Amino acid sequence: MEKSIDSFEALTHRLREHPDRKRVAVVCPHGESTLAAVKQAEEEGFITPLFVDDADPQAASRRGVELVRQGEADILMKGLVQTADLLRAVLDKKTGILPPGGTLTHIAVAQIPTYHKLLFYSDAAVIPYPTAPQRREQVKYMVGLCHRLGIGQPKISLIHCSEKADAKNFPFTEDYLQIVDEARHGTFGSCVVDGPLDVKTSCDLHSMEIKGIRSPIAGDADGLILPDIEAGNLFYKTVTLFAGAEVAGVLQGTLKPVVLPSRGDNHRAKYLSLLLAAIAG
Amino acid sequence: MEKSIDSFEALTHRLREHPDRKRVAVVCPHGESTLAAVKQAEEEGFITPLFVDDADPQAASRRGVELVRQGEADILMKGLVQTADLLRAVLDKKTGILPPGGTLTHIAVAQIPTYHKLLFYSDAAVIPYPTAPQRREQVKYMVGLCHRLGIGQPKISLIHCSEKADAKNFPFTEDYLQIVDEARHGTFGSCVVDGPLDVKTSCDLHSMEIKGIRSPIAGDADGLILPDIEAGNLFYKTVTLFAGAEVAGVLQGTLKPVVLPSRGDNHRAKYLSLLLAAIAG
Repeated sequence: MEKSIDSFEALTHRLREHPDRKRVAVVCPHGESTLAAVKQAEEEGFITPLFVDDADPQAASRRGVELVRQGEADILMKGLVQTADLLRAVLDKKTGILPPGGTLTHIAVAQIPTYHKLLFYSDAAVIPYPTAPQRREQVKYMVGLCHRLGIGQPKISLIHCSEKADAKNFPFTEDYLQIVDEARHGTFGSCVVDGPLDVKTSCDLHSMEIKGIRSPIAGDADGLILPDIEAGNLFYKTVTLFAGAEVAGVLQGTLKPVVLPSRGDNHRAKYLSLLLAAIAG
Repeated sequence: MEKSIDSFEALTHRLREHPDRKRVAVVCPHGESTLAAVKQAEEEGFITPLFVDDADPQAASRRGVELVRQGEADILMKGLVQTADLLRAVLDKKTGILPPGGTLTHIAVAQIPTYHKLLFYSDAAVIPYPTAPQRREQVKYMVGLCHRLGIGQPKISLIHCSEKADAKNFPFTEDYLQIVDEARHGTFGSCVVDGPLDVKTSCDLHSMEIKGIRSPIAGDADGLILPDIEAGNLFYKTVTLFAGAEVAGVLQGTLKPVVLPSRGDNHRAKYLSLLLAAIAG
């Protein structure tokens, strides 16, 4: 059995061991950091870029999506195009790549120098306030992505500011309790799901013990399901700015992974996102 | 003019320069970290503790609150008592210490090794989803607290996952725009308020410039008004766990500051909170 991937370095090694170049449709392939990221991933043998350029970004978006639909591309990547334009093409009911009834959500993974392994989190970018069914999809995608990285039984923590469910003020915490129950019954496959828990008790055993809480997460979370996009975005910005974290992110729910960097992402973040998409695909 | 306080060390120095022992009513003075924090602040000359003990924690809470009402205590501190018990006494309409129409909210300040000064944030502990009037009070209290620390014109950032207001999905971002406008007209006194902005553009000039945003915050925020308690709590837990931050917090809106540590807080956090309350009072 292969060792689980616990760092971006280990992710790179894994991709090297299993050479299988993914074809990446890069929509509007401009911008220094995008081109540098694509070039590095290509030179290292992980991807083959398919540059989809057009003076009309909407046309380029539709063509990029079409390449994925026809099985000619394994990954869709946003270049110098508005997110709204690309998502419109992705979500088009006739020509898009989100299956009917599918949930589009964002999963990212952070390598935080002060944490002992990779830490997944969702959703920092797409769904403002997840509904109960969307929350279940987030858990499902996160478990699936962890399995892809060789994490056989990922520990997923459902995050709230308290460890007590509160149906009145925080209705989603009721969903949490149901999801924990479903996870115990095997709904999400091999995983451990618990919550509500806060970030500190999820990622630090000592903090959990001080609070007198017992949880199978035991301060060793592989992934955090964050309550909403505000919490998700805040987590992403805070760990990158103040804790020196590196992050990679992909959209899930589509036929194939979509790499949708934000404007502030540097070359390294885009490169790591390509690697994550390559293993997710 | 005195230099502004930009670290907990500077806060300690300031309190030493202006010896004015605050009388702290410690409700149910038990628990190792609480006692150690009180003892240290007393030995350093900052406070005089008034221990309010009773086999009935509710009675102790009422007595502690009464000491503040009668002007016999300058700070109320929670010891080994349930938060709900203490807050019930604080909020009691007849015998409590929240003025009629007042807003109880939590303000904390973090010293993050990777940031160049103290960073205030609100609300990580009390108000789940602030209404527009509550949000204004949060800004008002934060500006006031910054002034107390000698920050003449604090830069306060109204946090959202994007820099665009979105009335449909995020109604509070409309409040943000109005608050920014009111701040410009002097409603909150000497301060600079801007938003919506995310944490990274608020605290890092480079991130702001990459995004092509212009803001008077200019990556130099003194304080963050966080969208809701989930974001507030996540910020607190993330900077302390992953970025090595130390934090202090107080309740605002009451006649006198209330120190309400959470179970997970260590001796140092409680001690720093007493110092913050001493300068806030």
